[in-house]
Amino acid sequence: AEVCTGPGDLALLPARAPGAHKGAGGEVLVVGGGPYQGAPYIAAMGALRAGADIVRIASPAYIPMPDLIYERLEGDVITNDHLETILGLVGRADVVVCGMGLGRASHDVVLAVAEAAEKAVFDADALARPLPAAKETIYTPHAGEFARMTGAEPPVDLVPRARSVKAAATAGTILLKGPVDVVSDGKRVRFNRTGTPAMTTGGTGDLLAGMAGALFCHLPAFEAACIAAYANGRAGMRAAEERGCGMLATDMLDFIPRELFGRGTPG
Amino acid sequence: AEVCTGPGDLALLPARAPGAHKGAGGEVLVVGGGPYQGAPYIAAMGALRAGADIVRIASPAYIPMPDLIYERLEGDVITNDHLETILGLVGRADVVVCGMGLGRASHDVVLAVAEAAEKAVFDADALARPLPAAKETIYTPHAGEFARMTGAEPPVDLVPRARSVKAAATAGTILLKGPVDVVSDGKRVRFNRTGTPAMTTGGTGDLLAGMAGALFCHLPAFEAACIAAYANGRAGMRAAEERGCGMLATDMLDFIPRELFGRGTPG
Amino acid sequence: AEVCTGPGDLALLPARAPGAHKGAGGEVLVVGGGPYQGAPYIAAMGALRAGADIVRIASPAYIPMPDLIYERLEGDVITNDHLETILGLVGRADVVVCGMGLGRASHDVVLAVAEAAEKAVFDADALARPLPAAKETIYTPHAGEFARMTGAEPPVDLVPRARSVKAAATAGTILLKGPVDVVSDGKRVRFNRTGTPAMTTGGTGDLLAGMAGALFCHLPAFEAACIAAYANGRAGMRAAEERGCGMLATDMLDFIPRELFGRGTPG
Amino acid sequence: AEVCTGPGDLALLPARAPGAHKGAGGEVLVVGGGPYQGAPYIAAMGALRAGADIVRIASPAYIPMPDLIYERLEGDVITNDHLETILGLVGRADVVVCGMGLGRASHDVVLAVAEAAEKAVFDADALARPLPAAKETIYTPHAGEFARMTGAEPPVDLVPRARSVKAAATAGTILLKGPVDVVSDGKRVRFNRTGTPAMTTGGTGDLLAGMAGALFCHLPAFEAACIAAYANGRAGMRAAEERGCGMLATDMLDFIPRELFGRGTPG
Repeated sequence: AEVCTGPGDLALLPARAPGAHKGAGGEVLVVGGGPYQGAPYIAAMGALRAGADIVRIASPAYIPMPDLIYERLEGDVITNDHLETILGLVGRADVVVCGMGLGRASHDVVLAVAEAAEKAVFDADALARPLPAAKETIYTPHAGEFARMTGAEPPVDLVPRARSVKAAATAGTILLKGPVDVVSDGKRVRFNRTGTPAMTTGGTGDLLAGMAGALFCHLPAFEAACIAAYANGRAGMRAAEERGCGMLATDMLDFIPRELFGRGTPG
Repeated sequence: AEVCTGPGDLALLPARAPGAHKGAGGEVLVVGGGPYQGAPYIAAMGALRAGADIVRIASPAYIPMPDLIYERLEGDVITNDHLETILGLVGRADVVVCGMGLGRASHDVVLAVAEAAEKAVFDADALARPLPAAKETIYTPHAGEFARMTGAEPPVDLVPRARSVKAAATAGTILLKGPVDVVSDGKRVRFNRTGTPAMTTGGTGDLLAGMAGALFCHLPAFEAACIAAYANGRAGMRAAEERGCGMLATDMLDFIPRELFGRGTPG
Repeated sequence: AEVCTGPGDLALLPARAPGAHKGAGGEVLVVGGGPYQGAPYIAAMGALRAGADIVRIASPAYIPMPDLIYERLEGDVITNDHLETILGLVGRADVVVCGMGLGRASHDVVLAVAEAAEKAVFDADALARPLPAAKETIYTPHAGEFARMTGAEPPVDLVPRARSVKAAATAGTILLKGPVDVVSDGKRVRFNRTGTPAMTTGGTGDLLAGMAGALFCHLPAFEAACIAAYANGRAGMRAAEERGCGMLATDMLDFIPRELFGRGTPG
Repeated sequence: AEVCTGPGDLALLPARAPGAHKGAGGEVLVVGGGPYQGAPYIAAMGALRAGADIVRIASPAYIPMPDLIYERLEGDVITNDHLETILGLVGRADVVVCGMGLGRASHDVVLAVAEAAEKAVFDADALARPLPAAKETIYTPHAGEFARMTGAEPPVDLVPRARSVKAAATAGTILLKGPVDVVSDGKRVRFNRTGTPAMTTGGTGDLLAGMAGALFCHLPAFEAACIAAYANGRAGMRAAEERGCGMLATDMLDFIPRELFGRGTPG
């Protein structure tokens, strides 16, 4: 099997059926925000640009964007008071993307979301112990979050790093972000070498989690994580061609569809 | 007569008179929003891009857009308390576009709007029984909403589907959205084959309703519905050429004017 | 003298001095908004695009735009309670642009602004009796507002129409908008034939008033009004080339600088 | 040594390391806003476009922009009540950019920020006496602010002007903005001749301060100030090519990355 992600992975993307109805591209729920406002919106826009048809954001923070559906959560931070509302939304979503901009005080809610969700992507503040796990799960830690999840920093060298990610991937697929991304579902391991140092700017990880969520609507966790990492890195490279280290995460949004769907009518 | 919509339909669009004054392109009132914020704004922008000159939104939800006129309705959802305000606006509009993002708790208001309006487009949550009917009406259901309107799912095969739409179109023109759209005023039937599976993304139907509202200012209901369906599908195809399944409903806004008005000065 | 506006009028625009300091392009204060939110913002953006350096908006309505300075007026409508705040701002502005989106209940404030201002552009709801007049004034009525100002509809034929505008221009320069604009300062008369029927869309008049305000910082009232009318119409023609009757007033913003300043570095 | 800034200065910009982690581009905190809303946001966007990875805004004013992190300060103006929150953020930032849109009533807070900060850029209202000074400081006055800082207007002729800036630069590097910018750290002096008279529009100075803050994360104060002045002026010239005196400060944002990082992948 190939060890690195590449354009061939995109062949796994299912064509949209000609008779598809509204929402066929998948429904994603983003649960996040509180101390940070923009993170869940960047994730949500990433999900739309990666093909999700309906994206809802349950968050205390509101940024008006007409293509997104905002589910208001009162207050400054997500608490158990919002749980009933959130769980109602979890039941309607194909995939829940959870954790960005959340802060560290909402972990009980994260665990309850995990218990209720069929498929979930956990990122950022959701990557804490006890580790949340849905029926099928993708985790998208950077090195520090990986250490928080597992208790140990990942090795720097790729071979032991891969072994470490593989060993940790017991509850789902782990996408360990880094100069080279490592993806494992506990059995398989893939490296992703797309990306650019300019992607150290804030929000690129939120975007990746949202993309993974959209792809996870139609693909298994491991394949969704590999393709998300590949296309996210490619979009970053494209944005950096234009703007170098002055690129923003939102600059990447424009490049995601072409990387994933090429140019030309879908279906 | 031709059975399918096509570019020839656009010849029906009236040229803007050289001496036209402000508002000559038509005034549209959008009544919607509550549980969903973005839907009435997408409809309203669709109306502007389809040639309406003045577009007002009566909604509890506010998204700041300088080209639209916002009529604030207090609270989270539209209720009878807003009726006087809304009816005052209905009296000034050429066409009312009603239902998107409304939720199911405002049907009394929808019925009152229908009673007061000369021309109306009903979409989404407004498509419930008892069915609202203005003096002249366009209904824009998808299959599920058609079932809610009529009590029966529309047949899948086009010939019986057309018969079913024609039979249901007693109170106005019905535009049944689907892989092939079916338009009937109870006498005539037209099919529309423009569109792309990428249009399953949220908001494309709101856009269509807004466009139908703008065209309905100057055209009979059946013709307005046919042209709206045709141009909406064309704009979706154009947006999908650029962005595939990662396209958004708001991406389509840029393509609507060229589909409807071509390139070059109007009038 | 030439009877029609034309590109030659642009030669009157003063070059920006190389050693100019912040604000040398002029400071404009827009007073408007209340029942309508977007109108003063379209005027303000028009002023910036026509060369003003600092543009403040005193309004109850807030639309976040980082290049504008918002001066909050509490409540839903401008009243005498805001007068002290507004007059403080009038004292700092080169030109006040007043009336768009104001509603009819704030005329006392309009009259007080007129009394305090050196130079003012009055538009829309400010065009009511008693007519406000600053030391130097531009009025920008359409036909209906002209009738409200003067008590009589303007004649349709251009020659008597020009005579009518000239006779009415006792307190300042009048720019009567229409298929052909008529500008008079009571002595001279100019016609402006730029524009397109697509400009019947909402907001194009707000834009014109803002542009006139910016130009009035550096030019006499008559010349500012002529150039604003000419460049506004040209920008509308350019926007309509792209979008026909689906153009928006805000589409015109991008075309204003090139019409006024050409392409190439200023100064 | 060269007397004028030039493209050669850009060689000082450090390449982003291939293994860089999130935030490696630098974290900037903007403290500003109150009477003016947009100024700190323009500074913050300037910082992002000049390569900062994480930009926080502590401000009473909120403009939703998903790439920025907003730290809410209650009320209309920054006071000592916000000090604990602000100082917590100062501790996490590589550079603090302070003063834009602040008004004159918050100088106690400015002084406390200066005392706590390792590196700071002071602009606009922060340029008052007693003069704030961090461990390392850049001051970005225009002529009037320079007079407020030092008690004397700067001479107009460049040679005595340079002498005056050099003499004043005891607590840090001064970037005196003007038709020709003068930068001095008390020992060295550099002139910057990029720029255009169209940059008299509001916000161009805010942008410059934000850019200086981003560059100051990785460069000494004098070098950061020189490069910021050079690239800001170049971006203004590029924006003015397109829009002349109708350019906005935010138009410049798009041109900053190319001026600083050229075209092509970084690192």
